[in-house]
Amino acid sequence: MDFHTAFRPETVQPQEIESRSFEIITEELGEHSFTPEQFAIVQRVIHASADFELGRSLRFHKDAIVSGIKAIREGKGVVADVQMVQVGISKPRIQKYGGDVHVFISDPDVIEEAKRLNTTRAIVSMRKAAAVADGAIYAIGNAPTALLELIRLVKEGIARPSLIIGVPVGFVSAAESKEELLKLDVPFITNIGRKGGSPVAVAAVNALSLLAEKMG
Amino acid sequence: MDFHTAFRPETVQPQEIESRSFEIITEELGEHSFTPEQFAIVQRVIHASADFELGRSLRFHKDAIVSGIKAIREGKGVVADVQMVQVGISKPRIQKYGGDVHVFISDPDVIEEAKRLNTTRAIVSMRKAAAVADGAIYAIGNAPTALLELIRLVKEGIARPSLIIGVPVGFVSAAESKEELLKLDVPFITNIGRKGGSPVAVAAVNALSLLAEKMG
Repeated sequence: MDFHTAFRPETVQPQEIESRSFEIITEELGEHSFTPEQFAIVQRVIHASADFELGRSLRFHKDAIVSGIKAIREGKGVVADVQMVQVGISKPRIQKYGGDVHVFISDPDVIEEAKRLNTTRAIVSMRKAAAVADGAIYAIGNAPTALLELIRLVKEGIARPSLIIGVPVGFVSAAESKEELLKLDVPFITNIGRKGGSPVAVAAVNALSLLAEKMG
Repeated sequence: MDFHTAFRPETVQPQEIESRSFEIITEELGEHSFTPEQFAIVQRVIHASADFELGRSLRFHKDAIVSGIKAIREGKGVVADVQMVQVGISKPRIQKYGGDVHVFISDPDVIEEAKRLNTTRAIVSMRKAAAVADGAIYAIGNAPTALLELIRLVKEGIARPSLIIGVPVGFVSAAESKEELLKLDVPFITNIGRKGGSPVAVAAVNALSLLAEKMG
């Protein structure tokens, strides 16, 4: 491989950029009522979106952080709704405890079942997750239909997530699906409104696994 | 695989959700000065972010759309800065013209070279792209350092992109890197400010490949 190299090697360090970014975020966010652990997640979400409104719109179930950290440290693993979430999540801090990051939406059996039922792959992927990933953390950044189906599976006692990170984005059903999640008494992290997305789900999982690591 | 199936199969159709979303976006955005082709991209960016401010902040070089469509139809392919952008881009509409969607940031030679030079993998991945993907569309959604390096490579005549989609997100160098891109006389799509991200880069490429497909 023949790279063109600059005359002077650059010395930009990603770690320095991140530290400086977090300082700016703390400064500009100002007063808030998040706990320190919640704030670690809010901060990383703002870092990923450059959107303070989105950061402020985050909501946490009282058991969210404790249950999420416990799940990571017990190797329960993470279920992502889409590939963009799966690839964005930092794997080493999940895998060191024996878990992994799964995504089922492109599995051949999921595609086939969705066709047969005339429904979405997102919905069927949640049914598969409930069957094969008991006690996992669900990270839903894209599909409101996935979140609504997961809520149904929880209500029926079929899915037993340790934590639902439900932050789908969009104009149809996204805000509504998150309002439904807010009513549920299971550990959740979600936000109010239409905004959200894969980077938000990724940021929340990555912040959580950093908290899990700090504990040990 | 033993799925739990709902009593009544659902009939949510993703295509319907998308159409309804686009209607809402057109309605709520109101007046704007984008061309119809630019608006197709703005609309999909707002769809991916639920953020009208971000949509309105998009800026287009006068040759951006024509050059981008031409590149796709000539099979020049796409270079993504990170995996999240790579997996999000719809492949069939790129591959049908002979191109593909590349990402170099995790290549062993890139990792090794970055270590040797004490610089970022993002920077080195742009040098590799310039060497192996002549005339590609660059889709940069994450790393300001990648965009700044690409701008340098263009100025030195080493990289010859058909289109730069430069929408990194963040608090350090992101806005500044996009201001540098705005000064460049190469086809670009970018935005003003800190916001951006992988879904924005993905949305722009996907909207563009849809335009490319409609032409033929």
